[in-house]
Amino acid sequence: MKNKMYEIKNLKLDKNSLMLNETIFHNANGYIGIRSSFEEGYEGIDSIRGSYINGFYDIAEMKQAEKLYGLVEDKQTMLNVVDTQGIEFFIDDEKFTMFDGEILESSRTLNMEEGYALRRVVWRSKKGKEIEIIIKRMASFVRLPLFIIDYSVKALNFSSLISFKSTHIGEVTNYCDPNDPRVARDSFKHLIPVEGFIEDGCSYLVTKTSRSNLEVCTSVKNVISKEGIFENKIENHNAVFSAKTQIQQGESVKLVKYAVFCDSIRFKDIVLSSKKIMEEALSVNLGVLYHEQREYLKDYWSKASIEIEGDEELSLAVNYNLYQLIQSVSKDEFGNIPAKGLSGEGYEGHYFWDTEMYIQPFFMLTYPEISKKLIEYRYHILDYARENARILGHEKGALYPWRTIMGKECSGYFPSGTAQYHISGDIAHSIVSYYLVTKDLDLMEKKGAEILFETARLWISAGNYYKGKFHINDVTGPDEYTCIVNNNYYTNVCAKNNLIWAKKIYEILKEKDLIKRVADKIGLTYDEIEEFQRASENMYIPYDEELKINPQDDSFLKKAVLDIENTPKENFPLLLNYHPLYLYRHQVCKQPDTVLSHFVFEDEEDTLTIRNSFLYYEKITTHDSSLSTCIFSIVASKLRLYNKAFNYFGDSAKLDLFDTHKNTKDGIHTANIGGNYMAIVYGFCGLRIKESGIYFNPFIPEKWDMYRFKIQFEGSLIQVEVDKEKTIFTLLSGDEKRINVYDKEYVLKDKVIVA
Amino acid sequence: MKNKMYEIKNLKLDKNSLMLNETIFHNANGYIGIRSSFEEGYEGIDSIRGSYINGFYDIAEMKQAEKLYGLVEDKQTMLNVVDTQGIEFFIDDEKFTMFDGEILESSRTLNMEEGYALRRVVWRSKKGKEIEIIIKRMASFVRLPLFIIDYSVKALNFSSLISFKSTHIGEVTNYCDPNDPRVARDSFKHLIPVEGFIEDGCSYLVTKTSRSNLEVCTSVKNVISKEGIFENKIENHNAVFSAKTQIQQGESVKLVKYAVFCDSIRFKDIVLSSKKIMEEALSVNLGVLYHEQREYLKDYWSKASIEIEGDEELSLAVNYNLYQLIQSVSKDEFGNIPAKGLSGEGYEGHYFWDTEMYIQPFFMLTYPEISKKLIEYRYHILDYARENARILGHEKGALYPWRTIMGKECSGYFPSGTAQYHISGDIAHSIVSYYLVTKDLDLMEKKGAEILFETARLWISAGNYYKGKFHINDVTGPDEYTCIVNNNYYTNVCAKNNLIWAKKIYEILKEKDLIKRVADKIGLTYDEIEEFQRASENMYIPYDEELKINPQDDSFLKKAVLDIENTPKENFPLLLNYHPLYLYRHQVCKQPDTVLSHFVFEDEEDTLTIRNSFLYYEKITTHDSSLSTCIFSIVASKLRLYNKAFNYFGDSAKLDLFDTHKNTKDGIHTANIGGNYMAIVYGFCGLRIKESGIYFNPFIPEKWDMYRFKIQFEGSLIQVEVDKEKTIFTLLSGDEKRINVYDKEYVLKDKVIVA
Repeated sequence: MKNKMYEIKNLKLDKNSLMLNETIFHNANGYIGIRSSFEEGYEGIDSIRGSYINGFYDIAEMKQAEKLYGLVEDKQTMLNVVDTQGIEFFIDDEKFTMFDGEILESSRTLNMEEGYALRRVVWRSKKGKEIEIIIKRMASFVRLPLFIIDYSVKALNFSSLISFKSTHIGEVTNYCDPNDPRVARDSFKHLIPVEGFIEDGCSYLVTKTSRSNLEVCTSVKNVISKEGIFENKIENHNAVFSAKTQIQQGESVKLVKYAVFCDSIRFKDIVLSSKKIMEEALSVNLGVLYHEQREYLKDYWSKASIEIEGDEELSLAVNYNLYQLIQSVSKDEFGNIPAKGLSGEGYEGHYFWDTEMYIQPFFMLTYPEISKKLIEYRYHILDYARENARILGHEKGALYPWRTIMGKECSGYFPSGTAQYHISGDIAHSIVSYYLVTKDLDLMEKKGAEILFETARLWISAGNYYKGKFHINDVTGPDEYTCIVNNNYYTNVCAKNNLIWAKKIYEILKEKDLIKRVADKIGLTYDEIEEFQRASENMYIPYDEELKINPQDDSFLKKAVLDIENTPKENFPLLLNYHPLYLYRHQVCKQPDTVLSHFVFEDEEDTLTIRNSFLYYEKITTHDSSLSTCIFSIVASKLRLYNKAFNYFGDSAKLDLFDTHKNTKDGIHTANIGGNYMAIVYGFCGLRIKESGIYFNPFIPEKWDMYRFKIQFEGSLIQVEVDKEKTIFTLLSGDEKRINVYDKEYVLKDKVIVA
Repeated sequence: MKNKMYEIKNLKLDKNSLMLNETIFHNANGYIGIRSSFEEGYEGIDSIRGSYINGFYDIAEMKQAEKLYGLVEDKQTMLNVVDTQGIEFFIDDEKFTMFDGEILESSRTLNMEEGYALRRVVWRSKKGKEIEIIIKRMASFVRLPLFIIDYSVKALNFSSLISFKSTHIGEVTNYCDPNDPRVARDSFKHLIPVEGFIEDGCSYLVTKTSRSNLEVCTSVKNVISKEGIFENKIENHNAVFSAKTQIQQGESVKLVKYAVFCDSIRFKDIVLSSKKIMEEALSVNLGVLYHEQREYLKDYWSKASIEIEGDEELSLAVNYNLYQLIQSVSKDEFGNIPAKGLSGEGYEGHYFWDTEMYIQPFFMLTYPEISKKLIEYRYHILDYARENARILGHEKGALYPWRTIMGKECSGYFPSGTAQYHISGDIAHSIVSYYLVTKDLDLMEKKGAEILFETARLWISAGNYYKGKFHINDVTGPDEYTCIVNNNYYTNVCAKNNLIWAKKIYEILKEKDLIKRVADKIGLTYDEIEEFQRASENMYIPYDEELKINPQDDSFLKKAVLDIENTPKENFPLLLNYHPLYLYRHQVCKQPDTVLSHFVFEDEEDTLTIRNSFLYYEKITTHDSSLSTCIFSIVASKLRLYNKAFNYFGDSAKLDLFDTHKNTKDGIHTANIGGNYMAIVYGFCGLRIKESGIYFNPFIPEKWDMYRFKIQFEGSLIQVEVDKEKTIFTLLSGDEKRINVYDKEYVLKDKVIVA
């Protein structure tokens, strides 16, 4: 497989590069995530030295400037857990450092087929001793609690005493930046050491969170390839393993550091589990662990890979992105996909609608079993969503929190947080989409339908009839540059879809005699189902006769248009430089809102309205959000605006690897990554999966020679290959399927070729 | 004069009564305010023991839950300054306390003609000694820094040693209630002692604020009527004066405590000024000080009193209210009128639009020289209003802060704070009103016009043309139960008035050749004046054809009507029990918005629209704001809905004295008080002062026999007396005036009687 290796040479040591590379080369497996900080650590050098566990949180105070009823004053925050990264290396009395002596060669590599990150340095000490250091790091996809640092040194021109100091640190804090609304504002010690001990040469630290009553046990074992003098001790909740040994010129010595993280959310007895997992890891050869990793990824890429020919750079960027998704996604229902994956502390590890609207499609089409877990997570927190609805004054229904970890709302500024009611409709939509792709009625009966009914109830409570039409007032749509509006187009259409599908699923389950359990559980009556139908049929859908577009909301088009062109470049992103009221008062979009709707709920409008709207909103969208360009690319594809589609796609693909938003240091942008996948599959290839079947409408960007991907549809695995002349559909496994290509139906038995 | 004495007997000692009476009987003079706490103080007994200086503030942190550009993160807060109230009294070794021994009699009295508060207790100690204690407290209107406690004891059935311990405490904190959005959330020591010393038997404490770099010097002198053993010392920034003396049965002994407060805002050398003011106070007999006070109030009541015959209770309430206004208003431009006067810490001593829209009319008509100071205060902070406009994205103009002390915005939740742009139009309106009453062109030329032009510029920047009409989007009107709306009726009309008058005043000053200075100063061009005119002429004024009312904003009438009748009583005020979004989503008003406009800017609509609107909004208004019933009374008067007018008036009149809002413990409600005055003068008597002249439209409430008040109009003093048969207008001084009564014009030379 090509383009599964990302390498940078001659490491830059400026502040941004240092922190950026910590993100870019981080190791994660959906359970743990460890930023690629320099093992040796540096005082006074900028670093966000973090290790995170998906879904593991503490509670932090978030006092409101003015207290109002129902405003959130406590938030969950992903915390930096115990630091197992530290390894210092000495040649005699000279400590290896990137900032002293001489760096002769340096590189970092991410190997996405093998599943490790590699750091290589050739260093000449002040005394002239030259050493090659190769450090391989891996977060195991097969043994989720396991993280390995494989630290190997080779003496190039000397023989000497060398030593290692490998640390296991229980005293850590979180990163903060008081001036950036997108990362935590306050430094706080969330992790309190409880106990530490050494057993069988392995150090164990048990720590607990300050307020959320969660615990994590980390264990660390250092294994060195050569005899020497070793010491293992714990002081002040920090464990230190020291090793001294002799090295000969040309010889390599290797220290392998095994770290195991067991949290109290997933593990009943965290110490016992740590011991067991550590023992199991140590009981096999290191090669076995690498082999497992490779096999896991082989399977992953066989389902998820997108192969592109003719554009090396973009191909690499796309694969890099897809690798981040499997690194970021939780494999159980206790976690989800943090906005920054497990790569940094931006947005404090919170889960947003990003999961459902930007990332779920990828997993649905490639890894439906993970997709299912993501839905199960939402079911897991449904009670909190109900509670949230009550706080907001709704007697019935569920309002999902705008941002959360364990289910309670964490949005501090509700106008662009909690007010985004559409998240409930988004979750409903993703459940329906999952159902359409998998036809998994079992999940629907057990969990999905309940969510659909409860979110449908929300809309009934949130909206009201006015002159016969169902209006939804005082909500915020996806675009956060206009908040608390009436009849946000996206929200109304999303609610309509939710209401329609609540009724449809009700009928489907009823027909199969599966409705009683859930209906009884939540006291659902058929009157309510009819009420859903009435509201959906009468949903007010804004349309402007003059411009022949869908207005973003009732008043959007009456506002002054913001002069984006003459706004100084340094004033972007606007949210960092303009008061919210100023933005609200203007026609300006941070991201697609109506345009997103025209992709996700495209059947609501004819192509002319969609085209007019696209061209209108494009002029006033700043793309200050990382959720923007991927969607513009998809809708441009739909409208056959090929150049635009390709350019927006490129911007999206490169966002993290090229740090185009200047904040990848705080973590990758998972929503954009999912969106970038969609820009190929739904955009270039025009995939749609609807009640009526599966549709393709492929084109290939001019620069490309070929692109190829696989999707799962109703249990069948289909490969799609698009080149300049034709598209080849191949049924790799499963039953034959009817497919629609360019509005024509085919039966896919083995292969269908469409020119 | 009748009904200038408010007395309560048998003091209740429950939590609310204790704190309520501290407010009700507080002493203030517009510079200092001291709550009427029990001199002897009690540990563990609820008390808001506060002394305040108008305009004297510290800076407090007000962190936003999520940081957004331009959001306020520091606020000014009125602080509790040095405590000079403390006097403990002992009979032998028995300490006088309200909670031990036996209270035989107790009362509190507010004497509004003499200008003091009196506390009287007859107490029997555990040992059976009976004493009468009479404590008179006065904040001098003539010597603003001076506060006096005149503490007199009379031995009723014993002779014994008695002693006093009079304190002067530098170590104080502010009151807080973390659960009530209307008072400060955090306890913080704002006052730091700097130095303390005793000179000539007088203790001096110099203290400074923690962050605002302000200082205050307090000096205290205790004078006792009898020889004895005295001691005066300072320890830990607390000064204590102790006196021991012998008392004989039937004898009275008196301790007079003089306290002087000099702040660094008004006084250059605070210590020297304190000394001087103290010396001057001590150099005259105490009787002289009481006499001065009486004379000051004689003058005040001669201008401001409203005499009502036939309704003792309301008459007392009205006079009580008017007394609070002269207690609360700053006499210089460094202060204004805090929302709670100087009687408590509610709203942290901030100044709001309350001053201009609710209280200025009273001073304008009775004390124009104070009215002028209030305008000068707004001029004093104009630069901060300009700065605020820039933060909000306006390149020109001034946006007055929603709440402030020294001029910077202190609103923590901008949707119901800073977004209330109307405050700028309100200030403009009050300047115009002042001008129409006084014809004071000098103030206009020097200060008023500049404010008018800068606020007019704000509207030009805030609004935009849509289909030929000038719209103002994303602002909040007076009603805080609907925030960030488009074309708020009140705001648009208020802005229109501002724009019209900016042009008018420009023309008036131009004609008198007075425009150049101010136009040059702010770079005002005639193009801008024309722009003002264009916007005012094309101002969009919402009107609903169906209901024939003015909608509160573009979307108000499309929302669901909140079912006030079936809302549980304990859920009011709604703001303490419903999430803002829930309130925003419903037709429900905290207070008059459009209805206020129909009073203040009544010429904008015909009576039918005003009547329809009144009846419509009345049904959906909760009067959760203390700014509500007074305005409903006025508009009801205008509409000749006599019963409603009287009932609303009564609710308003009794608000503080009867604690109907259950929060007078945090301070009086000055806006309601001003509004209550207006409910008589503008409401019952129908006063209007317009460009075209002065209008009356009097009626008398059924229950009343007569009411009488005086107003100043263009330098003439006019008395108005309304009884059941007629209204008598008497020119008490000044030139003759044309007056309009019931739409008929009269010339008032000496007297006009209209039946």
